[in-house]
Amino acid sequence: MIDDQRFGLARRVTLPGPLRLDSGAAFAPVEIAYETYGTLAADRGNAVLVCHALTGDQHLASAHPRTGKPGWWTRMVGPGRPIDTGRDFVVCANVLGSCMGSSGPASVDPATGRPYAMAFPVITIRDMVRAQAMLLDHLGVGTLRAVVGGSMGGMQALSWAATFPDRVRAAVVIASTARHTAQNIAFHEVGRQAVMADPNWREGDYYAASAPAAGLAVARMAAHITYLSEAGLTEKFGRRLQGRDAKSFGFDADFQVESYLRHQGMAFTDRFDANSYLYITRAMDYFDLAEEHGGLLANAFRGTRTRFAIVSFDTDWLYPTAESRAVVQALHAAGAPASFVELSSPFGHDAFLLDVPALDRIVAGFMEAGR
Amino acid sequence: MIDDQRFGLARRVTLPGPLRLDSGAAFAPVEIAYETYGTLAADRGNAVLVCHALTGDQHLASAHPRTGKPGWWTRMVGPGRPIDTGRDFVVCANVLGSCMGSSGPASVDPATGRPYAMAFPVITIRDMVRAQAMLLDHLGVGTLRAVVGGSMGGMQALSWAATFPDRVRAAVVIASTARHTAQNIAFHEVGRQAVMADPNWREGDYYAASAPAAGLAVARMAAHITYLSEAGLTEKFGRRLQGRDAKSFGFDADFQVESYLRHQGMAFTDRFDANSYLYITRAMDYFDLAEEHGGLLANAFRGTRTRFAIVSFDTDWLYPTAESRAVVQALHAAGAPASFVELSSPFGHDAFLLDVPALDRIVAGFMEAGR
Repeated sequence: MIDDQRFGLARRVTLPGPLRLDSGAAFAPVEIAYETYGTLAADRGNAVLVCHALTGDQHLASAHPRTGKPGWWTRMVGPGRPIDTGRDFVVCANVLGSCMGSSGPASVDPATGRPYAMAFPVITIRDMVRAQAMLLDHLGVGTLRAVVGGSMGGMQALSWAATFPDRVRAAVVIASTARHTAQNIAFHEVGRQAVMADPNWREGDYYAASAPAAGLAVARMAAHITYLSEAGLTEKFGRRLQGRDAKSFGFDADFQVESYLRHQGMAFTDRFDANSYLYITRAMDYFDLAEEHGGLLANAFRGTRTRFAIVSFDTDWLYPTAESRAVVQALHAAGAPASFVELSSPFGHDAFLLDVPALDRIVAGFMEAGR
Repeated sequence: MIDDQRFGLARRVTLPGPLRLDSGAAFAPVEIAYETYGTLAADRGNAVLVCHALTGDQHLASAHPRTGKPGWWTRMVGPGRPIDTGRDFVVCANVLGSCMGSSGPASVDPATGRPYAMAFPVITIRDMVRAQAMLLDHLGVGTLRAVVGGSMGGMQALSWAATFPDRVRAAVVIASTARHTAQNIAFHEVGRQAVMADPNWREGDYYAASAPAAGLAVARMAAHITYLSEAGLTEKFGRRLQGRDAKSFGFDADFQVESYLRHQGMAFTDRFDANSYLYITRAMDYFDLAEEHGGLLANAFRGTRTRFAIVSFDTDWLYPTAESRAVVQALHAAGAPASFVELSSPFGHDAFLLDVPALDRIVAGFMEAGR
């Protein structure tokens, strides 16, 4: 039994593997960095896995060690919160391919003593989930009381339910999708091309030199626009000028929204590895749960006993409500118990991370109903 | 009287200037490259100005000299077409700041004998319109029977009606807006940052060396996504793979949409100057017709006798129908005669360039009603 009273203890484990990947490759060793919150019950029945988004990390409810910022979901996870660490044992693992301690392109390949870089295998959402399952085995967790995630975290939650139906009693899928659309792929491809166009990228082999920060910043800027709603951007910035009374008739950041985007782009390069950005966006673009199940999404959930809560936001144009509705229809076709709600929020896709009290209530109610 | 029977003759004129710009600068000499189609009537009453979009050109209804492709609006402009060159004298000028023969950053500054590069003055949509007015003076055209444009061309049409109300009898504004929103600015800023992040950009001073093609291609890719609808992308590409049966588990273009975007980006760099892209996107971002008129858009049209036709497309998320509606409301508040229609099309913003027969009928009817 895992008894971890130390709130937010940073942990890393080397799992023996090999992990059999969707590409056919076998990957070993598999390092997974993770955090746990709360105590695993004697019957091991109170484990909850929270899955993070593209550029997220395992620092769910405790400060990020590099930035010092609070955990990214303290609103949702903690003592007395909707995901109640006073009652549940909550696990959050850095996804395979990322750069916060889990194996990724920046990790040192023990076979060469140098970073994998582009020799790291291309992975899928399901590969991330398989690595998490190996971690749960290590932690002595058989069945999850719930798997919860927003955005790419929601893809993992869906993949968990489809891949390990007997290990998931409930799944909460927020602002997510069962497949990446052509537009989703297109935006990611712009980001990848921006990284690869940076001469510092050097085919991924930049770890001993300067990182392709300029390209990664452009990638982040483009992606960031997709996380916000048009109305939200208008409300937050409109056409307001940055620190001046009049237009400069130049190419400095005249508008607040320009300055904000530039800051978002640059700040991101301090905390994220460009190659990880390539690998994780690739995994998301490859995600198509129907394709993994003979072309019919309902097949992914046939016979499942997992309960599902699906939540979308009306201003999310990255994974719009129609994508959630497609998931719900497949769940109904598969006979799975599924609740679905579209919430109203001005924040666009990012709403799942922000102050939307209705989301807290929905998650709290769904988690409580499963006790 | 201009009597130009030669269909599609390429022309360029050096206007003495100086052109007084919104920035306060005086610019001279002003070179404008343009095309004319049809014959100016003896009473000079049949002149129509068509304004092109961001990366468009004056080759409206005749082949592009560099690419050999047909004119960009042959569907709309030609003998017997909605804009009928058998009856009207149609003018299309390359906008100030562009790179198809009109003065722009790639032009040689006569004062130095070298390209202006970033010493070219920052311009506005109204500056483009003022340069066009100088061209019309040169051509002996006083009053326009109509000014017509889509996207940035529509901004120019609105600016024409607001700046020279006595010279515009009718304005057709398609898939456009009276101001750039925060989201519009954000997408353009991503493109500019992509160009400027390319080491070949060299603060704009690249004309004697390699152009920042990689950065400009990324800029074009990001912009291109905004020109298409999500549904259009799904219909055209979906998740179809490019020339293979299975995913490559690599970073080549696996999906057709990736390959399409890469091609769009690279092809663009063959025909467009990166600095022109900076300047013209800046002009669009600065565009806010209300701001130029005391903060109230209706003031831009108070007392006008210009007839307006405003057209939007239901899948255009770059300049959505709400932006057209704001223009129409201002026109009504100003007492201007204005017709408005939202057309249904799967093509997103690009619909104004594509096969939308309803658009042809609307333009034909509006043009005919003005005879």
